[in-house]
Amino acid sequence: MAAIKAHGSLISTATTRVLTTLYEKDLEFEFVVVDMGAGEHKKEHFLCLNPFGQVPAFEDGDLKLFESRAITNYIAYDYADKGTQLTCKDTKKMAIILVWMEVEAQQYDPVASKLVWELGVKPLVGMDTDTAIVEENEPKLAKVLDVYENRLAHSKYLGGDCFTLADLHHLPTLQYLLGTQTKKLFDSRPHVSAWVADITARPAWLKVQAMRNKH
Amino acid sequence: MAAIKAHGSLISTATTRVLTTLYEKDLEFEFVVVDMGAGEHKKEHFLCLNPFGQVPAFEDGDLKLFESRAITNYIAYDYADKGTQLTCKDTKKMAIILVWMEVEAQQYDPVASKLVWELGVKPLVGMDTDTAIVEENEPKLAKVLDVYENRLAHSKYLGGDCFTLADLHHLPTLQYLLGTQTKKLFDSRPHVSAWVADITARPAWLKVQAMRNKH
Ligand SMILES: N[C@@H](CCC(=O)N[C@@H](CS)C(=O)NCC(=O)O)C(=O)O
Ligand SMILES: N[C@@H](CCC(=O)N[C@@H](CS)C(=O)NCC(=O)O)C(=O)O
Repeated sequence: MAAIKAHGSLISTATTRVLTTLYEKDLEFEFVVVDMGAGEHKKEHFLCLNPFGQVPAFEDGDLKLFESRAITNYIAYDYADKGTQLTCKDTKKMAIILVWMEVEAQQYDPVASKLVWELGVKPLVGMDTDTAIVEENEPKLAKVLDVYENRLAHSKYLGGDCFTLADLHHLPTLQYLLGTQTKKLFDSRPHVSAWVADITARPAWLKVQAMRNKH
Repeated sequence: MAAIKAHGSLISTATTRVLTTLYEKDLEFEFVVVDMGAGEHKKEHFLCLNPFGQVPAFEDGDLKLFESRAITNYIAYDYADKGTQLTCKDTKKMAIILVWMEVEAQQYDPVASKLVWELGVKPLVGMDTDTAIVEENEPKLAKVLDVYENRLAHSKYLGGDCFTLADLHHLPTLQYLLGTQTKKLFDSRPHVSAWVADITARPAWLKVQAMRNKH
């Protein structure tokens, strides 16, 4: 029995954020599927793992965690010497990585997640896309990506010379958007699109995609 | 000339989050007022500090940072041996603190910030409160505070036995809401209201309040 258990769903962006981190760190883990269609994430035993009733949840021995970005940070720090180095020991360099992790969470994700829902998820489950929400959020995402284009013209990755959690956290929402009309916003920015090509080709991310295709 | 400069506005919750951290850590700093009324945060020289044109921005010697929670984390780590210990060296304990920092950012703040804007800021600047937004977000905040009530029944602070960044990050939005009808949601939950009384009485927070009253 693996000490590490990741509970979640492969269609959930927050879940695949955690799975990608586990693969980057070359860790053994058990993936416990939460049947969201059956409302399992709102049932007593899951609420003990995450009181907000959302996936993912995570266990490492006795330690129980939730919130995808808290989990990825824990993994990156606690297993610092395994797999890809996703953070940095130097506090000044780490500060810059922290800035771009916050940019993902505060500037990019709120907008990207709305577009993922409207354009990526709703059509899959037979719901109608709310075009007003799309028209409101695409220009907002474009503004965020203008800042990224500028940053990536001077830095190979968002946090600096190396791939870190700051880049990784984008992957799940990014991949959804590449399958929608919003792809154009990435394609039209050369440094952004080189970065997208680079990070979406990482073996850890391809493993998560393969899991999705198998299930 | 102080090595640390915090740029921002005292009415900005993200700015006072940073100032409180600086006071908790007993650090000398210069507060550089950004005149948001005059649109200074959208001007070239400020965009060099924060490309998103938002306050706060931060300098420590050559290091330039933005995003309030990235700044507070940097301060807490880089000045670990000064003032209040706001994080934890033990990775398992720190993981729990990370969870509750993410809860603030992902669950509490998006809802609390909307209520701050509608009930705290708009009336101050002569704009009309959108009651539909209030009616949508108060029940959402109540749900989040139900989780807090449960957590705080078993733990003095959100992250554990000690006051940490996980609590501190709430202070600016919390204080605004205590001056609005939303106060009732905190008052009606005994463990939440004991926690509110405790953290709003911290000397570092009172110093920030005093700065606000002076300006
Ligand atoms: N901030 C959370 C977000 C988690 C989240 O929104 N999970 C979604 C799936 S991606 C979910 O469980 N939705 C069901 C619900 O909210 O009821 C994280 O990063 O873990
Ligand atoms: N996530 C950012 C939020 C910063 C933010 O929203 N700042 C507001 C004041 S509290 C601002 O500058 N608003 C002006 C604008 O967005 O144009 C942080 O935590 O620093």
